[in-house]
Amino acid sequence: MSSAAAADVELPLAIFIIFVSARLMREVLERLRLPGIIGEILAGVIVGPHVLGWIRPSVFLTDLSELGVMFLLFRIGLEVRTADLMKIGRTAITVAVSGVTLSFIAAGGLALLWGRARVEAMFIAAAMVATSVVITAEVLSSRGLLSARASRVILASAVVDDILGLIVLAVVSGEARGSVNWFDLILTALLAICFTLFLAMWGHRAARLIVPGVKSRLSLAEAEFTFSIATLFGLAVLAVYAGVAAIIGAFLAGMALAESVEDRVHTMTAGVSELLVPFFLAGIGMRLDPRALADRSTLTLALALLVAALLSKLVGCGLGALRLGRADALRVGAGMAPRGEVGMIVAQLGHEMGVMSNSIFAIIIFLSVATTLAAPPMIRFAFRGVRSHPQNERV
Amino acid sequence: MSSAAAADVELPLAIFIIFVSARLMREVLERLRLPGIIGEILAGVIVGPHVLGWIRPSVFLTDLSELGVMFLLFRIGLEVRTADLMKIGRTAITVAVSGVTLSFIAAGGLALLWGRARVEAMFIAAAMVATSVVITAEVLSSRGLLSARASRVILASAVVDDILGLIVLAVVSGEARGSVNWFDLILTALLAICFTLFLAMWGHRAARLIVPGVKSRLSLAEAEFTFSIATLFGLAVLAVYAGVAAIIGAFLAGMALAESVEDRVHTMTAGVSELLVPFFLAGIGMRLDPRALADRSTLTLALALLVAALLSKLVGCGLGALRLGRADALRVGAGMAPRGEVGMIVAQLGHEMGVMSNSIFAIIIFLSVATTLAAPPMIRFAFRGVRSHPQNERV
Repeated sequence: MSSAAAADVELPLAIFIIFVSARLMREVLERLRLPGIIGEILAGVIVGPHVLGWIRPSVFLTDLSELGVMFLLFRIGLEVRTADLMKIGRTAITVAVSGVTLSFIAAGGLALLWGRARVEAMFIAAAMVATSVVITAEVLSSRGLLSARASRVILASAVVDDILGLIVLAVVSGEARGSVNWFDLILTALLAICFTLFLAMWGHRAARLIVPGVKSRLSLAEAEFTFSIATLFGLAVLAVYAGVAAIIGAFLAGMALAESVEDRVHTMTAGVSELLVPFFLAGIGMRLDPRALADRSTLTLALALLVAALLSKLVGCGLGALRLGRADALRVGAGMAPRGEVGMIVAQLGHEMGVMSNSIFAIIIFLSVATTLAAPPMIRFAFRGVRSHPQNERV
Repeated sequence: MSSAAAADVELPLAIFIIFVSARLMREVLERLRLPGIIGEILAGVIVGPHVLGWIRPSVFLTDLSELGVMFLLFRIGLEVRTADLMKIGRTAITVAVSGVTLSFIAAGGLALLWGRARVEAMFIAAAMVATSVVITAEVLSSRGLLSARASRVILASAVVDDILGLIVLAVVSGEARGSVNWFDLILTALLAICFTLFLAMWGHRAARLIVPGVKSRLSLAEAEFTFSIATLFGLAVLAVYAGVAAIIGAFLAGMALAESVEDRVHTMTAGVSELLVPFFLAGIGMRLDPRALADRSTLTLALALLVAALLSKLVGCGLGALRLGRADALRVGAGMAPRGEVGMIVAQLGHEMGVMSNSIFAIIIFLSVATTLAAPPMIRFAFRGVRSHPQNERV
């Protein structure tokens, strides 16, 4: 009995500890008028392996958080109208290109100046290129700011960013292996761009044709929700095959369905996302090992890179959005600052390829977490005075 | 890139295949006027390792289905009023005791008659004792029958059943090890009984005091849903420590909150449960290996045990519920027939203790799946003519 009971308690216990500590810390931070998202990440630091050691990262928890992120992006997509996003398409491309370029030069240049090898510097630069839209989207959505113009620019730029990040990473890892296959690279990039554009332009029209039939023709209960889940994961899979991240597919799926599905689907999606997102946020915190940055030269480089990472997006993306006025440019720059999980994936790859030292690996993890912690107050500051639509209300 | 992309696609692809195939098969079965739940189990057989081999059972999928079952039971609990369940408490105890006794004698006796060893026969009997309330609850809930009197008796009996199953399993595994510690056993049983009674009697009163404050005092968005999730997993953990299954804790949590939380919590819970339950149902199907029962004597014993398993609950539980009239007695007997995942857990334990041959292991897996497949049509037949409340409507 005892071993069976132990296995039985492990799962609910881990979920209880992570979920409750994340939400409690969010409550505490919000009472202190600080961004709640930081509380959830700190909860992960505290219960994680480097402080209390109550929870160790596991395949299940990682997969759960990946699932949570897909639902968060799907839910955000459900609140965005395609037409609103297409209108600011050109600005979004300028923002993404200029932010990516400046981040790459700033992070890579700094690492070279610090005397790091060329391959390592390139991987640091590649890790700092792509914005983690998840963090910004969470802050904007939980503060009811998704309908602001700057928010739409951020969302669209983050999608472009993902494609640019893919190209940069392909070039960098090709260089590290010895050669870049430019023909393959151009094909991959074209496929990713076509997939995204096609879904963004035609997804909502297809949904408008299909969704009404789903409810009337199927005998299934909750047919619209079932169809939405199938679309979410179907497009997430296709997105990966097309070369973009699964969460971009989830976001495009949400956007496609936004104007066609009933309110019940929005609420049911909110249930899944509210349950799972704390696992993503706490999961980021769990990976932060405060001791990894103990020696002084690593710490100085990390702090210099942090400033470079924040400024390069603030300035780069801000300049790209300048035509919208200075206030919106600042909002876009702040919103594009967090690097979150994207940098960690690049770090993982460089680590596996054996071209990245342990200290650089620790630095990139630190930068991912630190930009993620620094961004919410910046976003909050930049968006002060913007009218918010209370949560649970469709925009 | 390619290895990172492969890892990235695995999760959404597995979820897409399982979810979509389960829901498609449910749709097909429902169009054939057969129980949809059978379709979802069959989908697992088809995409699972023994037929198409697209999906292999994994820790993640198992954990996901365990999570799904907790949410299903929580959701069912949310639709049950404590007072309604307490009223039929005495009948429920009679039903559970008489069903458990008859199942144990029938399955154990049959195995002994077939010439199986005493320890093996005891494990087969223990595996056939406990009803899997998940299956019946899914059928009743998806057909809008949860408010019928027979349904309430089934739910309450299944809770009692779980405690009885715990005692039987403790005795049997003690015997297999050489001795039963009766003092420990009585303490364990008392703890389990007290925990369940205490929550059933006082849970909803505590919730009525706490829940109104949750929304007014916390700054968290979705505070009621957050509190509900915390209660669900908190009680699931306590349930395991008290010696009952985690899902019984989840069910009691739902019952406690049923009358206090807003409708939005019900819909958000439905979202999680609709997403995850297919993983539980398909997961049952995945474990069925049609070839394991290839030799004739194993197959005959399996079929004889299947008849014994179905009849013993039908007659045993039916007799226990006879005071409600013959129609309700039949409904209760049919509803208590599926053994589902409970039998599999016992089989696993016996297998690990080395007292159970491979063929008996395969037989128990077969019986779990077969009683689960046989029950829905029986339930449907027994409940014909009972007025159903359409889904998504609170009872």
